[in-house]
Amino acid sequence: MSATKSRKVVLVGATGLVGSAIIQTLERFPIDPEPLVLMATKKSADRKVRFRGTEMRVEEFDPSAFDDAWVVFFSGKDGLSEKYCPIAAGKGAWVIDNSAVFRMADGVPLVVPEVNPHEIGPAPRLIANPNCSTVQLAVVLNPIRKNFGLKRVIVSTYQSASGAGSEYLAQLNRDTAESLEKGFGGLDASSLAFNCLPDVGSQDIDGKFSEEVKLENELRKILGMPDLPVCATAVRVPTQVGHGESVVIETEKPADPDEVRSLLGESDGIAVEDEFEAREFPTPRKATGMDDVYVGRIRRAGIFENDLAFWVVADNLLKGAALNAVQIALYIREREKAALVHE
Amino acid sequence: MSATKSRKVVLVGATGLVGSAIIQTLERFPIDPEPLVLMATKKSADRKVRFRGTEMRVEEFDPSAFDDAWVVFFSGKDGLSEKYCPIAAGKGAWVIDNSAVFRMADGVPLVVPEVNPHEIGPAPRLIANPNCSTVQLAVVLNPIRKNFGLKRVIVSTYQSASGAGSEYLAQLNRDTAESLEKGFGGLDASSLAFNCLPDVGSQDIDGKFSEEVKLENELRKILGMPDLPVCATAVRVPTQVGHGESVVIETEKPADPDEVRSLLGESDGIAVEDEFEAREFPTPRKATGMDDVYVGRIRRAGIFENDLAFWVVADNLLKGAALNAVQIALYIREREKAALVHE
Repeated sequence: MSATKSRKVVLVGATGLVGSAIIQTLERFPIDPEPLVLMATKKSADRKVRFRGTEMRVEEFDPSAFDDAWVVFFSGKDGLSEKYCPIAAGKGAWVIDNSAVFRMADGVPLVVPEVNPHEIGPAPRLIANPNCSTVQLAVVLNPIRKNFGLKRVIVSTYQSASGAGSEYLAQLNRDTAESLEKGFGGLDASSLAFNCLPDVGSQDIDGKFSEEVKLENELRKILGMPDLPVCATAVRVPTQVGHGESVVIETEKPADPDEVRSLLGESDGIAVEDEFEAREFPTPRKATGMDDVYVGRIRRAGIFENDLAFWVVADNLLKGAALNAVQIALYIREREKAALVHE
Repeated sequence: MSATKSRKVVLVGATGLVGSAIIQTLERFPIDPEPLVLMATKKSADRKVRFRGTEMRVEEFDPSAFDDAWVVFFSGKDGLSEKYCPIAAGKGAWVIDNSAVFRMADGVPLVVPEVNPHEIGPAPRLIANPNCSTVQLAVVLNPIRKNFGLKRVIVSTYQSASGAGSEYLAQLNRDTAESLEKGFGGLDASSLAFNCLPDVGSQDIDGKFSEEVKLENELRKILGMPDLPVCATAVRVPTQVGHGESVVIETEKPADPDEVRSLLGESDGIAVEDEFEAREFPTPRKATGMDDVYVGRIRRAGIFENDLAFWVVADNLLKGAALNAVQIALYIREREKAALVHE
């Protein structure tokens, strides 16, 4: 590996919610003074985006940009990832893919940097960024797994509109304004405005929706526990940003809530906010724009001999997507720097 | 018991959300052509309310109205119930109390008419109406308990603003309008607008909030299973009316989802809405103004040998409060009529 190797970063899907969040995250966590190439579909190309004080033009998607790329972030449609992630990786770029296409593929690392960065090897260069609901839960469960063992996970999600993209978020805002104006009955029953929708993603197997299957399977893969019993129920709620999760777990060993608070408070990427008397707990509103995964309401569940219940919230566009992807790139960069020192 | 006995119905707390819902429910389900007396605190007295086509005046609270009452509904403050429920019952009225004060008291029946109406004896005349989140869960769990046995219950709630009263609901609407106008950052972090708040009720024991303790304890009492392991997490979400619940249960016997759908579809007070392909499931928006408890997303949870996961929604002001209270009065009336026949 040479010190003069390209540090070019390519972002595919630069105009979506996650793409925009990746740009903002790269501003805050500069990997290197790399050139950045922003790409989007024809419809969104030519838009102007501010990055580190200069105005950048979004280019129309063109795979020749992968030729001398160091990292390519994919945050576009699944079909684009499916076709072009292997091509970009084949050209020697590190590919960090936010789609669901490769997450469960054998040999593709599915990485949360606080949990399993060591799974990034010299190859393959294609790395999958997990589903938003999964990242925040994996960050919290990993230290618990290490210290107390993990036997069973039951999670119900409270997912924000932004998880379904910018158009869905805009629709929530429009519908909410309309509902306030016309009264409750004026809206279609399928609107998210002042509503909860218990069907997130597409229909999958055994009466489950894809968001639930992703959460269950990706959690098992990230934690390295292929047989962990997990039951996820995914519900969309009328929030804009920030996914909440109500979690009950059975542990192998007794886990005292105070001990768990200390443990999690010292763990990377986690902020414990658990002030019972002052009623200060994580909420989507407080987590919006924040990097940490917030956890609170840590208590005994009272239904297994050893158990815990808690409440987790994170910004689904940051730790749930953009920040986690950039952290993967930062990890790779640090490892490359260390390798240079030892050459 | 004499046929000429008074049928006077008194409603304490007539101007609150639950009080208003009781008036509307009495219009739809006439107990008898009874005289109705509406009472409220001094602040709300003198308001005019329409009942069966005539305008009624809300009177200032006066316990002498209990003297010749047949049924007294209490839907005011806890303190009022605590003091006056026993007085009204002592005067011979059937008292149906919507407060939490007497629900867990020994000897006070806590009644969901679909589940345990037989617990209403000739005495005491004080009957507690359960917490809104509890009623809808008890209605669904009772047929499951009878047919498959019940070993463990894990529930996470998605509770609407109306559960915290009319002022809280109005505040949600104002805050939501303000948030849409000013943008996300313009509001206090504790606002429910586009937010989820995981602290419903007052602080109780073992890191739990009172709504959670109510759900756990009242469920055990209604189902007659004092040792049932139940873990409840109560979360307020930005909906106006209708409480959602994500439920996972362990059963004694294998419970096939299709069999459970048939069973629940034939059970009183339950509407199964579970169209996986068409994505038709219960939502707060659809349940608003409806009498039934809606259940869907019935599937195997996949974490116990015998288990189920499902999603329950009901109108918290109707089956969760007013309708359940009126159904208790209707049950008592039917029993009195039957007794007259046999006299």
